[in-house]
Amino acid sequence: MEIKKPTLVVDKAKTLSNIKRMNNKVKASGNVRFRPHFKTHQSAETGQWFRDLGVTAIAVSSVDMAAYFARHGWRDITIAILANQHEIPDMLELIKQYNLRLSLLADSMATVALLEEHFYNQQLNEKIDMWIKVDTGYHRTGIDCNDKTGILAVAKAIQTTSSLRFQGLLTHAGHSYHPPGTSETNGEVRKRGALKAVYNDAITKLNDARDYLRTKGFPEVEISFGDTPTCSVVESFEGVDEVRCGNFVYYDLMQRSLGVCREEDISVAVACPVLGCYPERSEIVIYGGAVHLSKESIKDKSGNTIYGLVALPNQDFTHWSSAAKNTYVSEISQEHGVIKAADEFIHHVKPGDILMILPVHSCLTVNLMR
Amino acid sequence: MEIKKPTLVVDKAKTLSNIKRMNNKVKASGNVRFRPHFKTHQSAETGQWFRDLGVTAIAVSSVDMAAYFARHGWRDITIAILANQHEIPDMLELIKQYNLRLSLLADSMATVALLEEHFYNQQLNEKIDMWIKVDTGYHRTGIDCNDKTGILAVAKAIQTTSSLRFQGLLTHAGHSYHPPGTSETNGEVRKRGALKAVYNDAITKLNDARDYLRTKGFPEVEISFGDTPTCSVVESFEGVDEVRCGNFVYYDLMQRSLGVCREEDISVAVACPVLGCYPERSEIVIYGGAVHLSKESIKDKSGNTIYGLVALPNQDFTHWSSAAKNTYVSEISQEHGVIKAADEFIHHVKPGDILMILPVHSCLTVNLMR
Repeated sequence: MEIKKPTLVVDKAKTLSNIKRMNNKVKASGNVRFRPHFKTHQSAETGQWFRDLGVTAIAVSSVDMAAYFARHGWRDITIAILANQHEIPDMLELIKQYNLRLSLLADSMATVALLEEHFYNQQLNEKIDMWIKVDTGYHRTGIDCNDKTGILAVAKAIQTTSSLRFQGLLTHAGHSYHPPGTSETNGEVRKRGALKAVYNDAITKLNDARDYLRTKGFPEVEISFGDTPTCSVVESFEGVDEVRCGNFVYYDLMQRSLGVCREEDISVAVACPVLGCYPERSEIVIYGGAVHLSKESIKDKSGNTIYGLVALPNQDFTHWSSAAKNTYVSEISQEHGVIKAADEFIHHVKPGDILMILPVHSCLTVNLMR
Repeated sequence: MEIKKPTLVVDKAKTLSNIKRMNNKVKASGNVRFRPHFKTHQSAETGQWFRDLGVTAIAVSSVDMAAYFARHGWRDITIAILANQHEIPDMLELIKQYNLRLSLLADSMATVALLEEHFYNQQLNEKIDMWIKVDTGYHRTGIDCNDKTGILAVAKAIQTTSSLRFQGLLTHAGHSYHPPGTSETNGEVRKRGALKAVYNDAITKLNDARDYLRTKGFPEVEISFGDTPTCSVVESFEGVDEVRCGNFVYYDLMQRSLGVCREEDISVAVACPVLGCYPERSEIVIYGGAVHLSKESIKDKSGNTIYGLVALPNQDFTHWSSAAKNTYVSEISQEHGVIKAADEFIHHVKPGDILMILPVHSCLTVNLMR
């Protein structure tokens, strides 16, 4: 591979290993559907690596992404954000063009009513699978999982439509990215314990809500769960019917800081040319900034703000070393990154060299670089 | 205009007014070249609005951007980051294909030597204009502007080449984004005063360095200056030959928080569909997240982290109201934004409505949405 400018590099072996590990855990959990979220990679090629393992169902986060993967042969797609009424005509086109099995999300009777209004007279071969988005603690979207009568009301609203079929309860436990009772300085064992607690708490709430719905005339209620931190630390997926995580495919420094992956599991990096070296202030400036890596940051244990770690490439830029010690991207502007570098590192670097930057948040980095 | 998903909206009248204001100030400053930085808009259409005012020289931040604007008829382009040796073949192609006048930046003799090595036997019609990048306080790239012998050494290195012509000293006073001696809670007068001080300090240093070079056999040394905060607050551009600011074309909340523009000068917004309303926690969730707005944030005077302000669109989504009071984007994930909303605002909003988000950093937002 030739590197001329900031370039995303995917380590295929590491990626396959990440995919297989999660796929095996889902399979070992019994009757659980793996519906990986493809918003992280947004790549037909990486999608194919899942298909090779027998995966047929996916989640995406936009109608455009659904269209992209439908074009690449995927036929069972959940658009895993609350249904956006303005894109219903585009969804209809996808369903008809590809005979797509499309699943959507709602958390209000108003949205259910709007969907029915648009779908009921469209002569669809199959009903749309509707998930009720429930909030298990993240507090972004969803009906509070403890509000069982609220959930029941929306389930009944779905049941009364002619175009929608109630599939179950879906949650994104995004509060796992800041697990309660932990801080940057905690050890991995404590962080992983806190993540398991997030998982167990969410699964308990979801199963309580499901039990309630069963007593109210909904015998079949699936549970869909998925966020990479908790899915990476639990031993098996008891109590769920569908697993929807996505970031695990590449992982990143945020996941590493949560104790969820090892540095060597991170399977993407951005290859960046060095533009300037400033040993007098222990800094290297790379061509690679916010439009390549994103402005996502984490704090390290010393309180430094980190926009990436720095590794050395192999000769053909397909792999990289472990991250250099005491060396990190400390500032980032539109096209530039500033690396605070250890003396023993900076003395081996000159303008024109290529450095590999491990990203803080691979979803955002890959979205920018794809 | 129809809004189906997060969509960038440019208010043409406001943009033209921003362009004309800066262009008039440059013209009124006498013999000063306006070389607006096009990395903010990256748009041939917006570029044309500059051309209509007689602008012929531009700056960009990548070779790809240079190629884009060359295709759209621009023939005098500075790639305003340190020259990236890996893209020299692409630069050569552009020069030959478009008979482009290309200007490049270097801050070391090593880079000058590399450029000469690649350019000297290319039979170029004209030499490449070389700027020495100097550091007037931002400490990202550039030779310390006080290191006059260091600057002289690079100027001499350029002079001895056969392919490069020494043009002058170029700086990006990016420290204006955090002007010394100010904080979020300072008033506008103090902030604008601090920005003028940044400008005056940089111009003094640059003119000192130019005077020194004149005594050493370089009678013609231009000074190129450009960052939106200082360029917006100074009354005229005395002591410079070229003005290179870019963000002013659209402005944004960061510039407003610096006291550099008014809210009504911000001429871009992202139109975002509402996905959910949660009055019980005073929150609205929009379809519009880090992949649309970027993760850039500012702090308001109360210490809240802000990812955008929220306005209401006119009927055809081409303009918007002033920002709603006590209402702002408080959290952002890949596709979602969470708005903390005042009660009087949230009660008029329902799923499916379109809200206009004023961005924190228009360069990053426009880059994501273009």
